[in-house]
Amino acid sequence: MADKSSDVASAMISAMIRAEVITIGDELLIGQTINTNASWIGEALGLIGVDVRRVTVVGDDAVEMTRSLDAAMKEAQLVILTGGLGPTHDDVTRDVVAAYFKTELVFDDRFFNIVRERFERRGRTVPESNRTQAMIPVGFDVMPNPIGTAPGFWKRVGTLKKPVYVAVVPGVPREMKRMVTEQVVPRVRDVFDLPVIQHRMIHTSGIGESHLQDLLENVTGQLGDYVRLAYLPSLEGVKLRLSVRSRTPEHAAKELDRVTGYILERAGRFAFTTVGESLEGAVGRLLRSSGTSVAVAESCTGGRILDRLTDIPGASAYVRGGVVAYSNDVKVEAVGVDRETLAEYGAVSEAVALKMAQGIRQRLGADVGLSATGILGPTGGTTDKPVGTVWIALSRDGMERAELCKLGTDRESNKRRAVTAVLNLLRLDLAERGFADLS
Amino acid sequence: MADKSSDVASAMISAMIRAEVITIGDELLIGQTINTNASWIGEALGLIGVDVRRVTVVGDDAVEMTRSLDAAMKEAQLVILTGGLGPTHDDVTRDVVAAYFKTELVFDDRFFNIVRERFERRGRTVPESNRTQAMIPVGFDVMPNPIGTAPGFWKRVGTLKKPVYVAVVPGVPREMKRMVTEQVVPRVRDVFDLPVIQHRMIHTSGIGESHLQDLLENVTGQLGDYVRLAYLPSLEGVKLRLSVRSRTPEHAAKELDRVTGYILERAGRFAFTTVGESLEGAVGRLLRSSGTSVAVAESCTGGRILDRLTDIPGASAYVRGGVVAYSNDVKVEAVGVDRETLAEYGAVSEAVALKMAQGIRQRLGADVGLSATGILGPTGGTTDKPVGTVWIALSRDGMERAELCKLGTDRESNKRRAVTAVLNLLRLDLAERGFADLS
Repeated sequence: MADKSSDVASAMISAMIRAEVITIGDELLIGQTINTNASWIGEALGLIGVDVRRVTVVGDDAVEMTRSLDAAMKEAQLVILTGGLGPTHDDVTRDVVAAYFKTELVFDDRFFNIVRERFERRGRTVPESNRTQAMIPVGFDVMPNPIGTAPGFWKRVGTLKKPVYVAVVPGVPREMKRMVTEQVVPRVRDVFDLPVIQHRMIHTSGIGESHLQDLLENVTGQLGDYVRLAYLPSLEGVKLRLSVRSRTPEHAAKELDRVTGYILERAGRFAFTTVGESLEGAVGRLLRSSGTSVAVAESCTGGRILDRLTDIPGASAYVRGGVVAYSNDVKVEAVGVDRETLAEYGAVSEAVALKMAQGIRQRLGADVGLSATGILGPTGGTTDKPVGTVWIALSRDGMERAELCKLGTDRESNKRRAVTAVLNLLRLDLAERGFADLS
Repeated sequence: MADKSSDVASAMISAMIRAEVITIGDELLIGQTINTNASWIGEALGLIGVDVRRVTVVGDDAVEMTRSLDAAMKEAQLVILTGGLGPTHDDVTRDVVAAYFKTELVFDDRFFNIVRERFERRGRTVPESNRTQAMIPVGFDVMPNPIGTAPGFWKRVGTLKKPVYVAVVPGVPREMKRMVTEQVVPRVRDVFDLPVIQHRMIHTSGIGESHLQDLLENVTGQLGDYVRLAYLPSLEGVKLRLSVRSRTPEHAAKELDRVTGYILERAGRFAFTTVGESLEGAVGRLLRSSGTSVAVAESCTGGRILDRLTDIPGASAYVRGGVVAYSNDVKVEAVGVDRETLAEYGAVSEAVALKMAQGIRQRLGADVGLSATGILGPTGGTTDKPVGTVWIALSRDGMERAELCKLGTDRESNKRRAVTAVLNLLRLDLAERGFADLS
């Protein structure tokens, strides 16, 4: 067993590929845009067993880009450049890449026609300046961009003995992500002999990182030689990422299954998915499978509970709709809260949260009503009800429940936490009723 | 006049200081931590006229760090390293710096005593491992860290003719920020003759990057020697960033004013702020100043219009609330759309969008009603109404208006675009009524 382990480990290490990422854009250097692309790419490549060993950030500046590209070419087997492919005069990435590899730019008719057709389908004319974006360095493969006007490009360069693969992708995050996922990752898998890497994410909700850690106390002893565990906390809940590097997919899967089993047993209802579902996705799945419809009355959360519920395609099957009752009049007229309750307890109270959940359920004819009312800040708090006080509630036939959330002082974090708390209240209620299957 | 300009220009160029930032930590490369330190330092230095021209991100790896430090030393006049000053064995920054500058580490009694006293004041004993953190390369100035256990250090190195200043600061963001603000920035100001730098952002909405460029056709000719212009597109609109470098604040401001004036004249109503306001912020400001209240009926946008409107603190002054009418029954019962209109034109139609805007305005007693109804995808499209078809509408006393948006196939992008289109419809209507002041 020990011999086998070191075999796996050494195979794993010998297969490590060195990648470098060059992110381009003045906005990254002057602090206007935080470089989320670099970390996203680092994670995406790490997931397939490629190590990003250096990230360089340079402005829209040909000299700097050339210097960084040259440095990366000397060390890496995979170089990814992102950004500077826009249509304007300050976007120089394609010129720099062409010059560095001693080639020229040619106009790519096929790509431009695809862009033109996309504009025309929307009744628009493609602007002349977008033609620049269809200029591709000769000898590079075009990587299509189904949601933007800048194609990416890819080439094997370097020498026969030391090939280097170069990928150039747009800087707009959603275009970059899609192109890396659909174009770059498959090509990288194709050209390199990568180790077997498998990951599993266990999403939890309703429990903080430290408490979760306490619950899983001896998990470290369970990980063995191949599995790594990372706690990834966010305002939406704590995710647990298990990663295993191995020689065979069977061994990797077996190890993941073993540790996952251990964690799920201990995390209980706090865990809701092992396949990367969002909280609203899990709630949607449970609502759909149980034939339950939902309506929401939101005050402080301002529509975001409904927004998240309806982010799931097909949400119309179980979301009836809801009311954003920002003013008290709307709470009375559109949700059916009575003025006496408002006067006696105030808008931010258990009584009003319950009335809102009941009212919206009845008015919209839904099986479950949800509500949130609170003070998100930065102002509006009182001694009794400081900023961060939020009441949430759930109402269904024969059952109702309210919870007090004591949040912080940051408006946006409070909104996200309150929305998560409401979605989790619904999830736990569905779970108690027996609709608790993990995805 | 021309002579004076070139004087300023040459002074400006000679005063440009090249800085490089090296951020250190495995967590930055694998996507676990987003590199906010790099952008924060870029902004902090930019504000005093120092250009961060390159950022390098490396792991906790002596070889990589040395290589990056060497590259930076060749080009920069100021090199800032951040991270890797922790107490554990994988924190190697201080060793690498000492080795690179051919010096040794010595234990800094004075700093360690300060840390020890801080622990003792809280009734705790300083852990042994923190002793490592008080090891400083000989010849470097210690920069105190009032909120952490790792000091920073600073030194003038390089040659007499080409001095380079090196600053090493912790990676914990709040420690780094405080040390850069209190220690690094004053030292930089002290040793360099810095230019004056000013920035301005012009936000636009309702026009794409290429069309905006067409509208501003000759702007490049207006920039002159001092001003730079960048286009920053997003799903929320295109931002224009102007940056000027000069010797005097007066000249810088004058140049920015001149180019801003040129752009605003040509961009017309598409521009809505020069002080970094969000679209919902600008709309909120105009609603507030004109004493206009708003209510929203959302179908496909699922609550996000209201969510964005209420992201602005104090939105309760002008947001009455709204209804998320995801099902047709809710459109009829809670918004007042008649079943005949729904049957004749379908839920995604100009007629229903208008009825929704009218209905919500009347029901919630608001001055303006807004609506959105459409098919965001990925499924649900038909030949007549493909995915991406969204009708938006605005209703107020004596006026109503509907617009057809032909969007793409990505659900999330469509949601963001549709919400932006609705907010912009409201903004433009307020502008037409004379509430058009730019912030």
